[in-house]
Amino acid sequence: MQLSKRLAAELFGTFWLVLGGCGSAVLAANFAGPVHGLGIGFVGVSLAFGLTVLTMAYAIGHISGCHLNPAVSVGLTVAGRFPARDLLPYIFAQVIGAVLGALVLSLIASGKPGFDLVASGFASNGYGERSPGHYSLAAAFICEVVMTGFFLFVILGATDKRAPAGFAPIAIGLCLTLIHLISIPVTNTSVNPARSTGPALFVGGAAVDQLWMFWVAPIIGAVIAGVLYPLVAESRRGNSQKLALD
Amino acid sequence: MQLSKRLAAELFGTFWLVLGGCGSAVLAANFAGPVHGLGIGFVGVSLAFGLTVLTMAYAIGHISGCHLNPAVSVGLTVAGRFPARDLLPYIFAQVIGAVLGALVLSLIASGKPGFDLVASGFASNGYGERSPGHYSLAAAFICEVVMTGFFLFVILGATDKRAPAGFAPIAIGLCLTLIHLISIPVTNTSVNPARSTGPALFVGGAAVDQLWMFWVAPIIGAVIAGVLYPLVAESRRGNSQKLALD
Amino acid sequence: MQLSKRLAAELFGTFWLVLGGCGSAVLAANFAGPVHGLGIGFVGVSLAFGLTVLTMAYAIGHISGCHLNPAVSVGLTVAGRFPARDLLPYIFAQVIGAVLGALVLSLIASGKPGFDLVASGFASNGYGERSPGHYSLAAAFICEVVMTGFFLFVILGATDKRAPAGFAPIAIGLCLTLIHLISIPVTNTSVNPARSTGPALFVGGAAVDQLWMFWVAPIIGAVIAGVLYPLVAESRRGNSQKLALD
Amino acid sequence: MQLSKRLAAELFGTFWLVLGGCGSAVLAANFAGPVHGLGIGFVGVSLAFGLTVLTMAYAIGHISGCHLNPAVSVGLTVAGRFPARDLLPYIFAQVIGAVLGALVLSLIASGKPGFDLVASGFASNGYGERSPGHYSLAAAFICEVVMTGFFLFVILGATDKRAPAGFAPIAIGLCLTLIHLISIPVTNTSVNPARSTGPALFVGGAAVDQLWMFWVAPIIGAVIAGVLYPLVAESRRGNSQKLALD
Repeated sequence: MQLSKRLAAELFGTFWLVLGGCGSAVLAANFAGPVHGLGIGFVGVSLAFGLTVLTMAYAIGHISGCHLNPAVSVGLTVAGRFPARDLLPYIFAQVIGAVLGALVLSLIASGKPGFDLVASGFASNGYGERSPGHYSLAAAFICEVVMTGFFLFVILGATDKRAPAGFAPIAIGLCLTLIHLISIPVTNTSVNPARSTGPALFVGGAAVDQLWMFWVAPIIGAVIAGVLYPLVAESRRGNSQKLALD
Repeated sequence: MQLSKRLAAELFGTFWLVLGGCGSAVLAANFAGPVHGLGIGFVGVSLAFGLTVLTMAYAIGHISGCHLNPAVSVGLTVAGRFPARDLLPYIFAQVIGAVLGALVLSLIASGKPGFDLVASGFASNGYGERSPGHYSLAAAFICEVVMTGFFLFVILGATDKRAPAGFAPIAIGLCLTLIHLISIPVTNTSVNPARSTGPALFVGGAAVDQLWMFWVAPIIGAVIAGVLYPLVAESRRGNSQKLALD
Repeated sequence: MQLSKRLAAELFGTFWLVLGGCGSAVLAANFAGPVHGLGIGFVGVSLAFGLTVLTMAYAIGHISGCHLNPAVSVGLTVAGRFPARDLLPYIFAQVIGAVLGALVLSLIASGKPGFDLVASGFASNGYGERSPGHYSLAAAFICEVVMTGFFLFVILGATDKRAPAGFAPIAIGLCLTLIHLISIPVTNTSVNPARSTGPALFVGGAAVDQLWMFWVAPIIGAVIAGVLYPLVAESRRGNSQKLALD
Repeated sequence: MQLSKRLAAELFGTFWLVLGGCGSAVLAANFAGPVHGLGIGFVGVSLAFGLTVLTMAYAIGHISGCHLNPAVSVGLTVAGRFPARDLLPYIFAQVIGAVLGALVLSLIASGKPGFDLVASGFASNGYGERSPGHYSLAAAFICEVVMTGFFLFVILGATDKRAPAGFAPIAIGLCLTLIHLISIPVTNTSVNPARSTGPALFVGGAAVDQLWMFWVAPIIGAVIAGVLYPLVAESRRGNSQKLALD
């Protein structure tokens, strides 16, 4: 497959991840109802993020591998599953897709009378005062490193050629759901620098000031998993390697 | 398979989509409880819509392809996956199924003392004053175009012959769940003109006046995806085409 | 496989369906919390019922076909997928399993200070005054017929030899989840005479008086689907028949 | 695969089970929101526990079999699916992983201003005064025995060589979700002595005093299922045995 088509697939996929995941949070998490809250809460947002990946992995896995996430591309490169020469183009396409997804989301969300993008937080990630539960920078940093590490560990394992074929999108998508079920209160859950960048650029201010952390911590976690999985999984160095989702 | 049997399958399937999806919204979304709300909220309604498609795709995918949605049939036709001569019969069967599903739902719902079909909204779609969150026509229109576009993109990708076999109903059904998790507050979520038509005919008035939008926007989205997916996915024009779910 | 082992599997499986499905409703649906309700509500109960079937279908599908439901056994017999001579033994094993499941549930539930089995309803099914939303007998009857009919339609379709192999337990289990998302407010959802019988025997009184309906309506729905599916699905009478989940 | 790598996989996996399952409970179950509760409640915690197993089963099933639970290892040994000589090393690795998972969770949770680990319960298991619904020791004991028994029954069935290949992680993971949907109010749900041990060591006091029960009851349930499944499932003793998830 030509690189241009793979990059288009990554751009569409990351667009969908931000529009769907952040969109569910911005549009639907808090909706009131006549008897009780009808909004989807953190459970619904967790499900939505995971399903953006599950659906896209079946839709474009055969085109681009469906990374949708710079940390995933880095982790796969470290583990020897992705060619380093494609890393920067992939990350670029992912960030563009994330920004465009946030743009379309802002158009839809602004159609509600009284919507205030900055005050809403616009599903941006944060620590300290900007953490949903006011978690410290240290806790947020540990959380993002560990969550991204396990995310990559599951990705590397579920796409191992010894794992059952065809199920990786379920394992990986629902792993992202699981990660959100755990960590939305801590950082609003990133584990994905592109997903963090899209909304932050629209919120500006402190959201942009804190953005560095959502690039550094996920990538550290991904690198650790990219080193660790082959050590645990392989009887002899170098066997059972293949490109993710191929 | 004879066309008559495929049309019967589409009719049953769309009946199930409206009875199940709209039924969960009308009967169960708002239910009170002794301690806290027991109702299923938007998360439950989202799950229900998706599961009507997931269950029917396994049940009748081998009979009719399980479109259950005029926008899906249009998008598959544009992408070269569905013969144009079957398009109108399919759409006709889908609309009949949707109306009959809404009819049976009205019979069940009316068995509750004090049920007022029109006041309840009967799970009809809407924009402006009839949007659950009072979203503008423009926001609602963009939302329906984009959501249906990605729905078709996932359908075309997950039924591509290079995607893992057998998993398409999971990807497609859960994509519909995801779309509802995002967009119920905006339009009550259509992405399906037949699903919109069924309840609207029972509610009448403004619900029927707004019905045009839930035919136009989803079909625009589907056409865009039907053009776009082959451009992104195919190394050479025309390969990897097959009928959905075959 | 000997009949005795198949009956043991049906007994265990229906035990699990009642203990898990009704158990989630009795023990966990209404649980309060310090900030908001922690209970699982109708969404959680719907998920639990479906997962009892999904898990058992993978665990014992290869032993007994995993019916766990007299209406399912009847529908499969009508459709020519199950030998009539095994019908009564299967139903007997299912009812015994359901009663034993309700017995163990009563032991666990009674360990909570102040638990009143009869006042709790013990997850029994009902119509009129005993319907969660006070739905009429007619609405409840239609609902159970239609829901069981579609349940059997999905079972027959998903176990058709043209459907993708191995996925039937997902389609069937999640179909039961879907049915509960729609219809718990109407009848507390039966679609399964054995599941209705277990708790009703412990509640007694009106729960037993209404039990006839939860045998008659589901079986009518199952018979209709058992006649209808082959008409829609088969090009020539008699092909594509096989035992469920074989 | 060398034992050392299998033990590393078990350690990582049980770490993930405790960090993810208990983490979702400690960090996210009770979260408040501006309109209604945004916290994930027992439904979200149930989903999280199940998804830790589902994701790890696809990631490390091909390495260690993905037990993540001393009761699972014991039940598989009794059923003849796991070599007795590896039992103690597996249990040791699982307990170490659980304790380390609880340690990292305590680091993250402590980053929230005002967090009190002991007062929060830290997702530890309990009966009587320490049961979420104040269930008696007898009820809690029965519940843990029966739930673990069915868990092992599903594990043994879904990994039977006659069950469809590749689906076992879905059946087993969602079975753990189901078990939590039923029994969180009774014991906070263990069915896993390692999962109970991790948080209890951090809470200390009564949590440690009650720990014996969460070793004894799950292992009794697992032994019963390990004896029972082969009796029900096998036409002749000894066929259809294999190592879980191999």
